[in-house]
Amino acid sequence: VLFEPEGKKVSVSAGTTIFDAAKDAGVGVRSECGGKGLCGKCRVIVKDSKALSDLTEIERRFLQTSEVESGYRLACQARILNDVKVIIPPESRVMFRKIQVVGMERPVRLNPAVKKFHITLPMPTLSDIRPDHDRLLDTLSSVMKIDNSEMEMDYEIYKRLPDIIRSSSFDVTVTIWDNRRIISVEPGNTSNELFGFAVDIGTSKIVGYLVNLTTGEVLDVESVENPQIMYGEDIMSRITFAIAKPENLEILQKLVVDEINKIINEACRKTGISPQRIYEVVVVGNTAMHHFLLGIQPKYVALSPYVPAVKKQINVKAKELHVNINSFGIVTVLPIVAGFVGADAVADVLATGIHESDVLSLLVDIGTNTEVFLGNSEDLLSCSCASGPAFEGMHIKHGMKAVTGAIERVSISSNFEVKYKTVGDTRPTGLCGSAMIDAIAEMFKRGIINDKGSFNLQIKTSRLRKSDGEVEFVIAWGHETATGKDITLTQHDIREIQLAKAAIFTGCSILMKRKNVDEEKIDRVLVAGAFGNYINPESAKVLGLLPDVPINKIKFVGNTAIAGAKMALTSKEARKEANEISKKIRYLELAACPDFKEEFLNAIFIPHKNLNRFPSVRRFQIKGNSKYLI
Amino acid sequence: VLFEPEGKKVSVSAGTTIFDAAKDAGVGVRSECGGKGLCGKCRVIVKDSKALSDLTEIERRFLQTSEVESGYRLACQARILNDVKVIIPPESRVMFRKIQVVGMERPVRLNPAVKKFHITLPMPTLSDIRPDHDRLLDTLSSVMKIDNSEMEMDYEIYKRLPDIIRSSSFDVTVTIWDNRRIISVEPGNTSNELFGFAVDIGTSKIVGYLVNLTTGEVLDVESVENPQIMYGEDIMSRITFAIAKPENLEILQKLVVDEINKIINEACRKTGISPQRIYEVVVVGNTAMHHFLLGIQPKYVALSPYVPAVKKQINVKAKELHVNINSFGIVTVLPIVAGFVGADAVADVLATGIHESDVLSLLVDIGTNTEVFLGNSEDLLSCSCASGPAFEGMHIKHGMKAVTGAIERVSISSNFEVKYKTVGDTRPTGLCGSAMIDAIAEMFKRGIINDKGSFNLQIKTSRLRKSDGEVEFVIAWGHETATGKDITLTQHDIREIQLAKAAIFTGCSILMKRKNVDEEKIDRVLVAGAFGNYINPESAKVLGLLPDVPINKIKFVGNTAIAGAKMALTSKEARKEANEISKKIRYLELAACPDFKEEFLNAIFIPHKNLNRFPSVRRFQIKGNSKYLI
Repeated sequence: VLFEPEGKKVSVSAGTTIFDAAKDAGVGVRSECGGKGLCGKCRVIVKDSKALSDLTEIERRFLQTSEVESGYRLACQARILNDVKVIIPPESRVMFRKIQVVGMERPVRLNPAVKKFHITLPMPTLSDIRPDHDRLLDTLSSVMKIDNSEMEMDYEIYKRLPDIIRSSSFDVTVTIWDNRRIISVEPGNTSNELFGFAVDIGTSKIVGYLVNLTTGEVLDVESVENPQIMYGEDIMSRITFAIAKPENLEILQKLVVDEINKIINEACRKTGISPQRIYEVVVVGNTAMHHFLLGIQPKYVALSPYVPAVKKQINVKAKELHVNINSFGIVTVLPIVAGFVGADAVADVLATGIHESDVLSLLVDIGTNTEVFLGNSEDLLSCSCASGPAFEGMHIKHGMKAVTGAIERVSISSNFEVKYKTVGDTRPTGLCGSAMIDAIAEMFKRGIINDKGSFNLQIKTSRLRKSDGEVEFVIAWGHETATGKDITLTQHDIREIQLAKAAIFTGCSILMKRKNVDEEKIDRVLVAGAFGNYINPESAKVLGLLPDVPINKIKFVGNTAIAGAKMALTSKEARKEANEISKKIRYLELAACPDFKEEFLNAIFIPHKNLNRFPSVRRFQIKGNSKYLI
Repeated sequence: VLFEPEGKKVSVSAGTTIFDAAKDAGVGVRSECGGKGLCGKCRVIVKDSKALSDLTEIERRFLQTSEVESGYRLACQARILNDVKVIIPPESRVMFRKIQVVGMERPVRLNPAVKKFHITLPMPTLSDIRPDHDRLLDTLSSVMKIDNSEMEMDYEIYKRLPDIIRSSSFDVTVTIWDNRRIISVEPGNTSNELFGFAVDIGTSKIVGYLVNLTTGEVLDVESVENPQIMYGEDIMSRITFAIAKPENLEILQKLVVDEINKIINEACRKTGISPQRIYEVVVVGNTAMHHFLLGIQPKYVALSPYVPAVKKQINVKAKELHVNINSFGIVTVLPIVAGFVGADAVADVLATGIHESDVLSLLVDIGTNTEVFLGNSEDLLSCSCASGPAFEGMHIKHGMKAVTGAIERVSISSNFEVKYKTVGDTRPTGLCGSAMIDAIAEMFKRGIINDKGSFNLQIKTSRLRKSDGEVEFVIAWGHETATGKDITLTQHDIREIQLAKAAIFTGCSILMKRKNVDEEKIDRVLVAGAFGNYINPESAKVLGLLPDVPINKIKFVGNTAIAGAKMALTSKEARKEANEISKKIRYLELAACPDFKEEFLNAIFIPHKNLNRFPSVRRFQIKGNSKYLI
């Protein structure tokens, strides 16, 4: 197989998919689903159709007839039967992803739960016949200057202890977890090889940090799709899957564990570190991800009154979870709050410190599931919103993640001309979330759509048109794009965004109502989440995604979930604080709020049904009669 | 196959051994080795030799030519090829075993480490959305009246907790181990089903107690051979085997774990209790058995300076050790002292209470490995003696365990006539340990043997004779016995007993020397061990097995190891005491004593080279010239 335009060649056995062959060749092919035939994004062009297997049902669904005629195939579907040249078109190339993998974090004193002690034990003699274990503890006590008599040790370590300490003339390095458990005894001095891993399991993405626990330095950052997505993009569909059959929960658990192992291995490969030298993994994730990771029955989280199985921090032996780090390493799952406000939310609060601030903060962690917090050091109220994956490009005709070529900024002039900016300043291939927010806000400001999000069909511009039976607005013309095809935003796309933003704003609004706080009383709005950083705050306000507060009160704090996880990995004090936060945060179950439906319906409007809540957006209100789509 | 005299029939496939067929038929055939061809005790008679496989090398070794001609075979060797009648001769029938499975124990207040709490959780509502785990802990706290917030719970229990509590309308029974770990949550009220198991792993025997932990009652007692015996009768040969290849240690571990599982299952079968309702197993055993059970490298216990891997009490999940009790049950291995003075020794002291008594006690726990203690509440010194399995009947021509038909008492008159008593008062089939001690003491008193243990060939009695090239003394004539054959004690047998008793007395003697104590200062001699109870104390003194103290100071305390294990199973206070005992007992490594060899050589004499130490035996000293064997 020859891959163009890279010119890379690889030999594969007949029947291999183009997707797998590309992986073998080291050629990146875009995919949101990992080659499962779910996303239709791995489009490639092959002129010699005889060299490939026949078109599959899945390809027929994702490819238009004209595209098939031009040689388009899906790489994950088409199997190679013969020598073939495969062209990767621009829209299918894997590119730099503009995703926020770092976040605001508060500085902590380096004091990880895992610590190493290099000690030399006195050799046993006939006048010193202490057992190996006593000898070890006694020496440790004198080095650590604490009493270790209650120190636990993994049963399996006892088995090899006599041989280990004698293999290095009684010179060993002991790894202790949480001052209470010996998790490793290694021959010689390995005290400089002490690493940890922090993981944020998002509904869509898994982000991991490899951290040197002797310095606190982040050595590598990994970010991958959450493979559970193949069983549902949102939490509810995954829970539905999980409770359908007992083995389904195991499938979801295995998927996420395998993916964590992959990013651990990848980070270790890049840095030349052995996974055996990683002694602790700190994990955060929302309550569903938390239950899936631990294999805990998630059914009752989804049913009224929405109670999770467990709230407190859980420490599991990595071996029990099949996480491939040191044989006796520990996986620490930070505590959750309630409902779907999970350990990621605790990490958000930990990283931002809103729980110990006097100012009133509204913290919004935007993701497929969005957590919202309102409060200060006195009281903190939280809720969870099912915002869905639209901002990640899912269910949006030309939606994509913020990788090279994604339009990330859009402005529309009064004569409906469009200016845009792409990630990497290349020719555009699609729209990412921040561009969708910009585009809808701009269309609203220019009267292209009304407060219901419906297109004004009386607008005079060739950009507003009907295509394939649906009205859409052209953001970029084919001659400007990398694909040669127009990039548009459809009426359906706008509806998806409205539902997503309404879900988030409803959370904000109900929390404000419960705390009897209006927009003026909010001292700051912190926007967290991998994608949040790229939102234009002005557009977010016009769309009605965020409350109407002065722009200078809005702050983007990035991926605070992984930042908080890293804090808990590197600092026992931070970990303790996370546990206090988990207890302190009050939780509001939106699904149980009688006013939820009304609040949600009001929030579907752009910016909101009640314009008094958006005084700064009011001036864009459309006057006069226009003919709207719906 | 037809078994006689029981008349039981069974069909087996060709090639099955008679031993296995007898098991199928429910016919008991005696065996010390469990059918491994090691003991030669499973002798059966088959007249039709064509119905069986050919004689094996092993059979040739154990059976005399005359016996083979009479149709004798070993049941574990002979394979059935055709219909056959098998006669089980009297000496091969399995009989009631007179073994001391109970021992002196001090009363304890019933307070086991595992406890059950039947609780009803408040149902979750929209105004009470506590997670299941919090709900459980809160309810437990109010019932137990203690703060449970630090209570641990097995990760696997979290997984099923939501379904378990809902399967019984929030009415559950929680099992808590050591006030710090929830090991089971069961639907409904199971608080009356709380059982534990105590195990004493001896070098030769494994004894188990099934205990009702709600009453403290012993429901069943099981006693089996330690199957590790096939890899060596004594500790040293088993350690040699264990360190030869890494997998050998696993073999020894698996053998003992499987055997423990067998007796647990057998006890459960007899009492109709499910092994799932056993939540804790408390195990004692000497240091080698302790290391084998836990799979800990035992090599360095056998090499100077003889240090074990670990001393303190170890708690392992039963699942990790593959012990088949409740899925989350705990195996608690009591602490050891040092060298080969193990958890069984700690249990001996716990059961007898010599560590808190003002009187000076000498405690001797006789077994294949014998532990000796000397001291009181101020100080307790211990050592371990390799006494070997001779008292268990091993290496003794007509030796056997104290089962029905074993001669257990022997007296010899001045005209060399013998009186004896058998277990069960039946015709005799062999000699058990107490009879060997009696016989040698009596032979010494009557001048049949001298202080070196050698036969006086000038004795005029037909009982003293040469047979198969060896001199022996007839204890029972063939016409009196169940087998029709003479039961004798050979010169070699006497040597074996001398070595065994010398090992034990050397331990006593060196401890006395180290503590600067003579026989007169010893307030009491406690003899423990499964077989010790049946020893005639007068004979033991004449033999020189025990120091020469007045008979009323000698007390037989039985199987104090299992008694101590049971105390620790039923009482947390007793368990705490065991840990204090383990720390308190000082240990003397006999192998490192410069005077060991001399003490041992002196102790081989009957009763001792230095007769001043045995004033009460002195009167039996032989005067005049006799011609001794050696």
